[in-house]
Parts: sequence; structure tokens; C-alpha cells
Amino acid sequence: VTGHSCSRIRVRYAETDQMGVAYHGGYFAWFEVGRTDLLRERGVTYRELEHRDLRLPVIETGARFLRPVLYDDLIEVRTRVSDVSGARLSFEYEIHRDGTDGPLATAFTAHAAVNGRGRPRRLPADVLSLLS
Amino acid sequence: VTGHSCSRIRVRYAETDQMGVAYHGGYFAWFEVGRTDLLRERGVTYRELEHRDLRLPVIETGARFLRPVLYDDLIEVRTRVSDVSGARLSFEYEIHRDGTDGPLATAFTAHAAVNGRGRPRRLPADVLSLLS
Amino acid sequence: VTGHSCSRIRVRYAETDQMGVAYHGGYFAWFEVGRTDLLRERGVTYRELEHRDLRLPVIETGARFLRPVLYDDLIEVRTRVSDVSGARLSFEYEIHRDGTDGPLATAFTAHAAVNGRGRPRRLPADVLSLLS
Amino acid sequence: VTGHSCSRIRVRYAETDQMGVAYHGGYFAWFEVGRTDLLRERGVTYRELEHRDLRLPVIETGARFLRPVLYDDLIEVRTRVSDVSGARLSFEYEIHRDGTDGPLATAFTAHAAVNGRGRPRRLPADVLSLLS
Repeated sequence: VTGHSCSRIRVRYAETDQMGVAYHGGYFAWFEVGRTDLLRERGVTYRELEHRDLRLPVIETGARFLRPVLYDDLIEVRTRVSDVSGARLSFEYEIHRDGTDGPLATAFTAHAAVNGRGRPRRLPADVLSLLS
Repeated sequence: VTGHSCSRIRVRYAETDQMGVAYHGGYFAWFEVGRTDLLRERGVTYRELEHRDLRLPVIETGARFLRPVLYDDLIEVRTRVSDVSGARLSFEYEIHRDGTDGPLATAFTAHAAVNGRGRPRRLPADVLSLLS
Repeated sequence: VTGHSCSRIRVRYAETDQMGVAYHGGYFAWFEVGRTDLLRERGVTYRELEHRDLRLPVIETGARFLRPVLYDDLIEVRTRVSDVSGARLSFEYEIHRDGTDGPLATAFTAHAAVNGRGRPRRLPADVLSLLS
Repeated sequence: VTGHSCSRIRVRYAETDQMGVAYHGGYFAWFEVGRTDLLRERGVTYRELEHRDLRLPVIETGARFLRPVLYDDLIEVRTRVSDVSGARLSFEYEIHRDGTDGPLATAFTAHAAVNGRGRPRRLPADVLSLLS
């Protein structure tokens, strides 16, 4: 489980709040972009996984907001798989911005593998292989 | 088609932007609360309509943002049915706030009646009756 | 630091995703409602704190999503202060729903006290007192 | 006032709802991306305009949702200036997707030019010139 993918995202006005920074709740959509891009780079799309009756709902998350992210910033979300097993999958994220040392935020999400009715199922072998 | 319903909503910080006002795109969730409450008051819930294989996607909308809506404002969304026919349904909205004359915003949404696969269908007779 | 406040929130369609449940990123706006209500119940509003040049940005969060939250659910967010010091403040949250045993989600947020330019400052004595 | 700009946007899971399509309220953030990109292409950023004490709040909008936009779709927002005068500015938008004939949605937004305290002001001559 090595290697991270990079997603470049331009911060939208819609994502700011009246503190003049990006609202913390909006970061989770960026992390979603990060893991979606990672999957696509590894050769599978989440859309396709859904068609194969797999869902990966977030069951736990944690995030540290270290420095403000601002409107119109071009941020980079670095995503890597931190853990993968039969029915669990976890990702780690860092948000970076050119010209700022160190991450602006760090986070993780843990996911369960379930079918379309929410029942636990195992990750398909090819997906396990792509992510390991 | 007369009578409006009233929904009281407290504006969330998440709904503001760095202009220090509520972001225009977030109003549409408030209008959704408005028509959901109207349906519930008339005796049917949208959740129940979905279980009866009815969906009411928005096919057109228009809105005027007349005065800023601010964080922590307790706004009132006044919703009424403006038009209802076999396969169409429209709502009109006004947003008010105590202490301010006239609406802060006005809007409408037009909806198609479709089934779970997106095919046009007629509104059930009892729903038509509740909304007429 | 005892006693929790209760916020009742109706889940919006806008807050669901195509998995048919509430999107995890949207929970953070509910937690915000929770702590806003707690402050109001204790006798101070966040809006007023901003006017006194205090901001409480989220610097860390963690959440466990234990059971799905569904469209139109009437959820209860139970919020309590878990830690308060000169320049830090933390809240804990539980989301409950009538008819379901145990929380649907648990979470915390940690906040820094800063002024309008983002510089650390101490919590005012009256706020410290209300929250302790 | 001719020429449109093109913004390519990947639809996020966060932007879907339980109807299995993108929620209509989320389109307005895409239109915002469209006009932001148009300004940048013309040589000015909205961020910079804010630093020059100019704000362009949306005062009116209208949208037609013609065909569903789906999760993971790579859509193209085509934006053009439809009207510009001393203190007003309007944009028109079309959303397209490869492989689908005709727009998936069309919309407009009208904006007032105001200063940081919300008072009407004129568009700067250089901005007028870039947009005309």
C-alpha cells in the first residue's frame, strides 16, 4: 500500500464561509475527490464499483485543520490507501498549496464494503489487488 | 390552489460565504424545506410519495435575491402551490424575516412527475386533490 | 462542564446522496447547529461573539458514522462541552433518532479562539464561565 | 459581448441526491466556477476584484434542468457575458456532456456591483472593457 495520487482543486466561493476561509465541512467533498481520483488512477472507478453492487460508505473520519484554505486557492489533495482488508478500506489525505510549507490539513476516512442494500460484503479480488 | 405554509429556518454558518451573507445556491435547500412542509401539512410526505414510486425533480427554477440573508437569521419560508396538473407541479416561495418589510427573496420551482426510472407519470388522484 | 443541549433537525433531500442516505460531509453542519444551540441556551450567541471579535474555527474533528441517517428523519443532536480552557474549546456530539437504540453517529470538534484577523486570543471570562 | 469560456467539472458524490442525480441546488456552484473561469480567462480574477473592494452578488437567477446530470459525469460549463453595464452584469450558462446532444441545463445569473459594505458602485473601466 504505497504511492499517493494528487488531485488539484480550485476552492469555490460556495465553499467559503463568513470567516473568510473554506468551511471545514466542505473538506470532506475534497477528500472524496481525492479517493475517487486514486481509484481511477489504479484502474477502477467508483461509479463502476457501484454497478458491481459495491458501496464504500464512510464509517469513520478524522481531520486536522492546520492552516486556513482560502477562496480561489488551487489546492492539492494527496491521497493514499492506508489500510485495506477483506471488508474494510482506509485512506489518508493531505492538503497542500504551492508556496506554503507543510500540509494545510490532514485527514483519514475509513470505509466499510457493503452491497446495495447495505449488507457487508468482501472487496472483489481485483479491487483488493489494485489497492494493495 | 390557495393558502401558503410557513417554515421557520435558522441560517447556518455553513450556508454563509465570505461576502458575509447566505450563499445564493443554498436557498434552494430552503425552498425544498418549504415545499416538503407544505406537503406534510396537506397530509402527505414526499418520503411516502417516493415509496409510491413518484419523484418530483425540479425542471425549472427562478429566484430573485432582494436583500441579504444573514447568519443566524430566523427566516420564514412561505410556500404555496402555484400550479398543478396531471404531470406538472409548481411552487412559489417568499422568504421573510421579522423586522424587515417585504420579502428578502422570491422564487418558484417547477417539477415534473416521474417514476423511479425517470419516466413521466401522472400525479395520483389523492395528491392532485390535496394540492388543488 | 456538564449537561447537553438538544437540537432537532429534519434531514433535507439536499443532504442525501445517491447511496440513499445522508452524505457524511453534511453532518458537520448539524454539529454546528448543535453547538450554536448550546451557546444560545447558555445565554450567548455565536453571532454576538463574532461582534465581540471572537471566532472559533474548527481545528480538529472526528466522527463515527454508526448507522445510516435517512431523508426526512427527524434527528436529535445532543451536544455538550467536553473541554474548555483559555484559548481552546471542545464539543462532543451524538445523533439520535426516535425508535433507534443508541446513537447513529458520535463526533467531536475542537476549536481555537482567535480574533477577526485569525490571531489567538483568550476566551472572554463570561464565556468561559457560561461553558464551564 | 461574445465568446464563451469552458469549464470542465467532474460531478462529485457529495453533489448527488437519493434520486440518483445531481441535486439542482448544487448547479449554482458550477455556474460560479463558470463565471470565475471566464473572468480569469479575460485577465482578471474575482479574488482580485474583491481586493479592489468590488463584490458581485447574485441578484437574480433562472435555470432549466433539461436532462439529469449524473455522478462522475465530466460536464462542461459554457459561460458567456450576456449583459454588462455600469453597475450590472449578467452571465448565461449551458451545461454539456460528451455524447449527449444539446445542453443538459441552461441558466443565467444577474449580478449587482457593490462595494464591501454592500453599497452600489460602478464597475471599474478596465473590468467593463474586459467583459464588453
